[in-house]
Amino acid sequence: MRFLSEQRLDDGIVEREFTLGEIPGTLWTPASASASAPVPLILMSHNNGLPKAQPRLVARARHTAACGYAVVTIDAAGCGDRPRSAEAERTRAELGRAMRAGEPVDEIFEALIGPLVENAVPEWLTTLDAALELPEVDDGPVGYTSWTALGIRLAAVEPRIKAAGFFAGGYVPRAQREEARQLTVPLLMLLQWDDEGNPRRRALELFDTFGSKEKTLHANLGGHTGTPWFEAEDGNRFFGRHLK
Amino acid sequence: MRFLSEQRLDDGIVEREFTLGEIPGTLWTPASASASAPVPLILMSHNNGLPKAQPRLVARARHTAACGYAVVTIDAAGCGDRPRSAEAERTRAELGRAMRAGEPVDEIFEALIGPLVENAVPEWLTTLDAALELPEVDDGPVGYTSWTALGIRLAAVEPRIKAAGFFAGGYVPRAQREEARQLTVPLLMLLQWDDEGNPRRRALELFDTFGSKEKTLHANLGGHTGTPWFEAEDGNRFFGRHLK
Repeated sequence: MRFLSEQRLDDGIVEREFTLGEIPGTLWTPASASASAPVPLILMSHNNGLPKAQPRLVARARHTAACGYAVVTIDAAGCGDRPRSAEAERTRAELGRAMRAGEPVDEIFEALIGPLVENAVPEWLTTLDAALELPEVDDGPVGYTSWTALGIRLAAVEPRIKAAGFFAGGYVPRAQREEARQLTVPLLMLLQWDDEGNPRRRALELFDTFGSKEKTLHANLGGHTGTPWFEAEDGNRFFGRHLK
Repeated sequence: MRFLSEQRLDDGIVEREFTLGEIPGTLWTPASASASAPVPLILMSHNNGLPKAQPRLVARARHTAACGYAVVTIDAAGCGDRPRSAEAERTRAELGRAMRAGEPVDEIFEALIGPLVENAVPEWLTTLDAALELPEVDDGPVGYTSWTALGIRLAAVEPRIKAAGFFAGGYVPRAQREEARQLTVPLLMLLQWDDEGNPRRRALELFDTFGSKEKTLHANLGGHTGTPWFEAEDGNRFFGRHLK
């Protein structure tokens, strides 16, 4: 993990940009975190390839770090500002066209998100390994939050992940819908009741599918970006129960 | 409100039994509550006529009071240890028989719960009035929690109720399913995903029906009595946002 910049923010958070091979990432830690007082790690992803600098992700990462966590995010292969394959570009264009035309989008989502997850997983695991080597990061239980499809795969293959928060979950590739049955870690799934891009019925079916014995669903009225502020606090308490 | 007994409990809570005309009730307040430091009121009901001394209700009432609330419960007409009409007894017996036989129970529930709600409402409003007169109870916003059908009616008719928590909600009389559309107060609905007596689909439909702009659903794996302990804390934070 090669740090490119370090900035101390008003809220007592240290924000560091880094690269890890080809992977660009950002790490937020409380300024008080140290080798003698390390903090647990939370992997905070973004759905469908949005950039790691997206303001809602950054705001939530800082809020989470302020509650005593090291929060790491990356632009995985094909995500954020990373180059996209010509095929992915074509699929995204086709998705936009189909959505505007009101046509079924399942197969297009599958063709877009399936490979995105496959390619993102090894880079997130590399990031997890590197972050746990930092002295200010506790090498105990790790949390995961946000992009549902990626999180299902990560939680299925990486036993150091001990708690996972999932958002939305209306469209999840077939492979991850199957893997959801194998999960055993405590889960908090967050659903916006009127999410225009995530059919409610499918999200509820996915929640039903998860194999975990401790799973909690929080649903709130409103669209995709309307999650109320108190859910960020609820999320931090969820991680507090399982990582601290 | 005529107090019959007063007991100071280990957790710093004062528990008082009272009568209000024919109505027997219990009030829990923090020992620190006083005229100069009054605490908000929460009405804590019990579904389908269970007694106010039921241990799960008592535990939750004490936990809530310890977070800085006056919590009041009553055995309303036909509930708990109050006399039941011969008709109600017959309907309960018929309900048990139909459930064991796997027959449809909607109309029997309607015949049992409809009148129970109708008769309970005026007694709960009388209790609310009396509790707010106590100097240690804040006469500002009031909360309501637990029995869904009763709470819908109370929140629809009583503007002093500013936040409501509902539990289960699989069977709600027709009148309250209609009244649910009129509600405007913030709501927290708590659902057990595998509640044997409360069909999930109906509870989700009811959540969809509520007119409130701020409404949150919490669902957890497990049966009717399996609600995890952290939901009591979440409930108290919900009331904290709206009553304090």
